[in-house]
Parts: sequence; structure tokens; C-alpha cells
Amino acid sequence: MTEVDPAITQQVHDIARQARLAARQLALTSRGTKDAALLAMGDALLAAADDIVAQNRVDLTLGEENGLTRGLLDRLALTPERIVGIVEALREVAALPDPVGEVVRGSTLPNGLKLRQVRVPMGVVGMIYEARPNVTVDASGLGLKSGNAVILRGGSAAERTNQAIIAALRAGVEAVGLPGDAIQTIDPFGREGVRALMRARGLVDLLVPRGGAGLIQTVVRESVVPVIETGVGNCHVYVDGAADLSKALPIVINSKTHRPSVCNAAETLLVDRAVAREFVPQALAALAERGVILHGDAAVAALAPAGVTVLPVTAEDWGREYLDLEMAVGVVDGLEGAIGHIQEWSSGHTEAIVTESLWAADQFAARLDSAAIMINASTRFTDGGQFGLGAEIGISTQKLHARGPMGLAELTSTKWIAVGNGQVRA
Amino acid sequence: MTEVDPAITQQVHDIARQARLAARQLALTSRGTKDAALLAMGDALLAAADDIVAQNRVDLTLGEENGLTRGLLDRLALTPERIVGIVEALREVAALPDPVGEVVRGSTLPNGLKLRQVRVPMGVVGMIYEARPNVTVDASGLGLKSGNAVILRGGSAAERTNQAIIAALRAGVEAVGLPGDAIQTIDPFGREGVRALMRARGLVDLLVPRGGAGLIQTVVRESVVPVIETGVGNCHVYVDGAADLSKALPIVINSKTHRPSVCNAAETLLVDRAVAREFVPQALAALAERGVILHGDAAVAALAPAGVTVLPVTAEDWGREYLDLEMAVGVVDGLEGAIGHIQEWSSGHTEAIVTESLWAADQFAARLDSAAIMINASTRFTDGGQFGLGAEIGISTQKLHARGPMGLAELTSTKWIAVGNGQVRA
Repeated sequence: MTEVDPAITQQVHDIARQARLAARQLALTSRGTKDAALLAMGDALLAAADDIVAQNRVDLTLGEENGLTRGLLDRLALTPERIVGIVEALREVAALPDPVGEVVRGSTLPNGLKLRQVRVPMGVVGMIYEARPNVTVDASGLGLKSGNAVILRGGSAAERTNQAIIAALRAGVEAVGLPGDAIQTIDPFGREGVRALMRARGLVDLLVPRGGAGLIQTVVRESVVPVIETGVGNCHVYVDGAADLSKALPIVINSKTHRPSVCNAAETLLVDRAVAREFVPQALAALAERGVILHGDAAVAALAPAGVTVLPVTAEDWGREYLDLEMAVGVVDGLEGAIGHIQEWSSGHTEAIVTESLWAADQFAARLDSAAIMINASTRFTDGGQFGLGAEIGISTQKLHARGPMGLAELTSTKWIAVGNGQVRA
Repeated sequence: MTEVDPAITQQVHDIARQARLAARQLALTSRGTKDAALLAMGDALLAAADDIVAQNRVDLTLGEENGLTRGLLDRLALTPERIVGIVEALREVAALPDPVGEVVRGSTLPNGLKLRQVRVPMGVVGMIYEARPNVTVDASGLGLKSGNAVILRGGSAAERTNQAIIAALRAGVEAVGLPGDAIQTIDPFGREGVRALMRARGLVDLLVPRGGAGLIQTVVRESVVPVIETGVGNCHVYVDGAADLSKALPIVINSKTHRPSVCNAAETLLVDRAVAREFVPQALAALAERGVILHGDAAVAALAPAGVTVLPVTAEDWGREYLDLEMAVGVVDGLEGAIGHIQEWSSGHTEAIVTESLWAADQFAARLDSAAIMINASTRFTDGGQFGLGAEIGISTQKLHARGPMGLAELTSTKWIAVGNGQVRA
């Protein structure tokens, strides 16, 4: 491991120590006070909306000068209306149940010890993400509700916006008597700050990187703080020979085109050879009509209707998360072919099957090792809000601790408490 | 990161790929077959007992020549009686419920999607431990029951013993038609093999290091595979001013002397100044009588009865896991003093309080950030068997995924399965 600037390490680790002190207080704070803080944070954001929008304009201007893509600029942009939407999300978090203190399991042991396992906050949670100011608010709100202090790294492109937002959020937290240090940023320390954070084992309990595959891989490789990997979604839709094709077409279209830039959008369509002749032409036509660029294998290309362009699919395409109106399409030999393909290429996020066969549905669900399996439903449903978990902080594609949408419960750990009357071990 | 020998990387990663194929089969195997495998593994161990003991004698002789400590040699030694005990533990694992397939939560969403979260195996689990042949069997048994393939690194000092054991375990697995590759070793590849395993992200789902603090820290620092940190226990017993001292003395003695070499043994005794004059002399006398070497602060030294030696305690002592008949003893100013001391020095394993005060018990449990809190009970109860979880694979002192004793459930992940009828997102 390369060295990190010692002065920056010192400052970032001091921030983490302050966060830990704040977290100790938050861990003992009642739901009532935490919810009051969330509402006060929302009020403070609304009160500061003019300043936030002004700072955001500066970030946007610099972003344009620095050649940020239109997509990035769009995610970075804040308007008064967007701020109202963000505040609404904070209020929804206030309305969610408090995960802290939930008794997960418990029993009285044969020796009379009364044992219970109770949810407790993680402590200090670091979030590393890229130029999305709404994540600053979401992470702060979910962190506070679950009793955690957060340390945020929101990307240099959003630095001014995030600073204005964080000042407002801290004012809201302090307005109800909680420590403002529950919400802190390391943006001023740049990339060196991120590297210092990744080495703050013992000071930071969890790091959640959220963003592109490159960012996530860097954090996974360099961090000695425990990490939850989120969000890379190379999701598949498989149309089985036993599919009801009238269900298949809307599911394929919705999975691909409903919001192509997010991780639960489908990137690959696989069609059983048994129904390829019937289904592939209508699927290609419908996708092309909605502007989807198509990459297909030879069997698919041969079935393309007139006027629909099918580019030759490459190995790279099968592995790619386009995050755009672009899709790889292949014909496979039934369920086994589909499972083999997905086992080879999937990122473990979400896979959908369209079938009326109970056996095929069961095999698909049991044999694929992904966070979510959709049977006759769009991949777009893999989402904390859709699953009824409330807001989410990301979608985990790893198997440790959290898998799939991460809500409030996933931001907690547990503690065992045993109450006795003098018991010793024989 | 330094480079790992490419030839060894290749071989270790090939082993991981074979393990993954085996894991896919195990994930679909019924409880009945897995339990039959566990019994067959036990039978095979008994049938091979003579060979295992003979190989163990070679390891022991080499260990003596290489200057292994008496404690290490004792943990390494296998007798026919010990093998019977190990086989008994396998049979107990067979009797435990299967965690795989358990529905953790579920609901029908407003759009009619039937959603459930189901326990699934982790996949491939690596275990890194030191010269304890019983761990080879425990890890294989718990791994198989939870549907996981295991890759074992049991330490060069036990290499011959482990090879004989693993051959028997694989024969048992294969006897019921399951793949022997579910249990593999990388011992022949030495330390380079461990380093290759730590880089097998995507091939190995979880690494569990079990052993001394040095081993665990190396794995935490170097691994890009997710790790669960286990077992370093700097456990405290605090005797409060409101304690029933007739309960306090047995709890202190049991916590320290019942089995001093394990992680849930107490290492530090803290006594409230309010009861120090009464309790410290009897505690010191009782501990010294049982051969405990004592390190005390000035207040403790002043209270030492005649004939009891109290060495001066150092900062190093407060942080140390003696794992032996040795203890640090301090006088603190009430509950606040105890909590402050433990927050500074604890490794987050187990802390015990002896008190009749409900308020003190609540504060101690709520404010200390450790895996287990004992109220009027010995620290020695932090144990999967004692907690009623069945066998355990280690005791996690981290907050992610598993905290405290890790049983079968902690060797699983979950998967979301949604069953629909053509639902798409609006």
C-alpha cells in the first residue's frame, strides 16, 4: 500500500473520532428526537434553498467547463423543486420505524440466563459517491435514523453544493440538541482524504461506495475498513419456451427502457430457441422503436425484422452494464442455456425469467446466485422502496451482511445481552 | 500489494473454481443428504483414526523439533479419544436444523408481487487457522451443513494430520454422492497459497481467519475477499458499587480461570472505588490462590493482602489479551469510570457487569459497543453452544454480517425471490 499524506490522515481520522463521539450519543437517542431532527433537517434545507441552488450553479458552470457529460450534469443539478422532493424523502424516513432496539431473537437458556440479540447502530458509516447531491441528504437521513454518524465524500464536482447542504443538515441536527458532528464531509481533502478514510479501521465501521464500477473496485481493493459493494447491475431477462409471450414483451421493454441509467435496468435479453422465431422479431422491433441500440448473436441477427439494425454482439457486450438504451440479445438452448449464460456473465444483481412453468421458475430461482430473482416481473422492482423497506442507501451485490436493497436495518449491527443472577460456567 | 507467485495463484484459483462447482451442487442438496454426508464423514474419520493418529505423531515430532510451545503441541495432538469427540461434534451438527431455505421475511406487495427473502449458502468459504486439527473437522461440517464448499488452510505444523483428516472427510462426502471438492486444502502451497486465496475475489465469497491477533490483522489488511474478523477478546469484568459481592467473586474467578486460553476469558477486572476496600483483597487472594499473575494500579496494590504479589500495571497490560492465568486489575470511579476504561481498551468481544442496580445494568449494556454484554454472569457464556446456536465457527468481533458467536445462520447469505404475473414498473 502506498503512503497517504500524514497531515491529511491526521485530519480525516480526527473527523472520524468526532464522528464516533457523536455516534455514541446518537446510539442512545430516542426515535422521537431522531425524527424531530429529520424534520428539522428538512426545514433547514428549505430555508437554505436559495443558497444551495446558487452554490449548485457554480458547480454546474465549473462542471460544464470541465466537460462533464450531460448525464452527470443532470444528476448534479438542483432546482427548488428538486430540493422539495429531497426534503419529502427525509420526511418519509422520519415516518419509518426505528430499527435500533429491535429484538431480533432471544430465549431463556437452561441455566436461567435471559438472552436477547438487539439491533444497534453500526457506529460511523462512510459513504463515497459521485456528484449526486440527493445522496448527501439520503445518506445523512438514513444514517441519523439508524443511529449512525456519517462521513461523506460526495465528489469534487458537487463540492460547493454539498457544503451548503451539509451546513443546513448540521444546523437541523443541532436545532434539536444532537451533535452536528453526526454529519461530516471529507470533500476538502480530495482523493487523499478518501484514501485516509479507507485506512481508518477501528474509527470507521463501514464504507459504502456508490457509483461506477471503477470507484467501487478501488474501494474494495484499497479499504481495510469493511466495505459493502453496491450497485453494478448486469441484469438479465430470460424468455423461456414456456413463457406467456404477452407478458414477456412488456417485461422486456420495462426492464430495459423504464429507466436505463440505473442498476436494476436489464442489459441482456436471452430468448429460448423454442420461441425465438416468434418472440425475437417482435422484441427487436419494440426495442428499436424505443431507441434501443441492439447487439445480437447470429441467430438474433437472422430474425431481425426489416429496418432494425442488429450489431454483432461481443464477449465485452455480454459483460457490460450499458446504463443506457443499449442491449445485448442472444438465443439460448432453453433453461440450461440461460442459466449457463447468466452464471458466466452476471454481476449478481437481478435476473428475471418469463415462464408459466413452475419447474423452470424454481430452477431459475434456486440455481442462479444473484441478489434478486424476478419471476414474471420486471427487473426494475429490485428497489428498497418497491420492496417495502422504505428508502434505500444502495443495492448490495455482495453476500456478506446485506444483499439486495439496503434499508435502515442493513445500517445496523446487533449486540447480545444476557441477564443473569450470578451464573458461572460449569 | 506485492505480487503473488503466478503458478501458485493459478493452482489456488483452480481449487476455488472446483469448490464453486461443488458449492453449486451443495446449494441444491436436501438436508437429508447433507446429514447423511455428515454421518458418513464421521464414520470415515473413525475408520481412518489409526492413520490420522500416526500422521499426527509425525507432526508432533516435527513440532517439538521446531520448538512449538507446550500449548500449541497440546492443541495439535490427536488421540483416538479426541477423534471420537470430534466425530461426536459432527453428529451434533447433523442434528441441527438446516439454515438453507429458511424464509427470513416476506410479503405480498401492493402490485401483487409475492416477495420473500430466503437464506442461501454463502458459496465458497475460506478458513485460515493455526494447527488445530479439530477446526478442520468443525469447519468442514458446519460448511457442508450450511451448503458451502470450504477451502482450508490449517497451518504447516498440522499439515500431515490435516491431510489425513481431509482425505477421510472427502471420502465421507463422496460416499453419499456429493462432490469431494466441497472440502479442499491449500496447505501444500504454504503462505503464498494464503496470499493467493486472499486475492480470489469473485471465486471465494468469505474468508474467516481464526487464531492470533497477528494472523487476523494480516488477513484483514491484505484480503480483497470479504473477511469476518474473529476472536480477539480483551474481556472485562466490572464489579459495581451496587454489586452483590457474593455473586461477584464466583463470576470473576470463573471468567478468568475456567479456561484462560480462550477468547471469552476475562483479562481485566475493574472494581468500583465504593466497594474496592471490601472486594479487592478477597478477589486478589482468590485469584492468586488459583495461580493468577496480577497486575494492578496503585489503589489495587495498596489493598493487596499479605503474601499476594501485585505487579505494576502498564498501558500495555490494559490492552493485552493474556490468554493465560494473568490479569490486570484496576479501581475505577463508579460506572462512568468503568465505561470510560472499557471504551478505551476493549476489543469489542464481551464485557460483564456485576450489579443489583437496574440503571447501572442498562447503562452498561447500552453504552458499551461490544458483541456481548453479561449482566451478573461470567464472560465465558459468549459461545455458540452456550447461546443455543449449536456449534460455532468462531466469534466475530466486527459489526458487519455477524457479531458474536457465528453458527450455521452466519454462514449463509440471503436472496430475494419475487413471483409475479407480468408486473412492470409504472
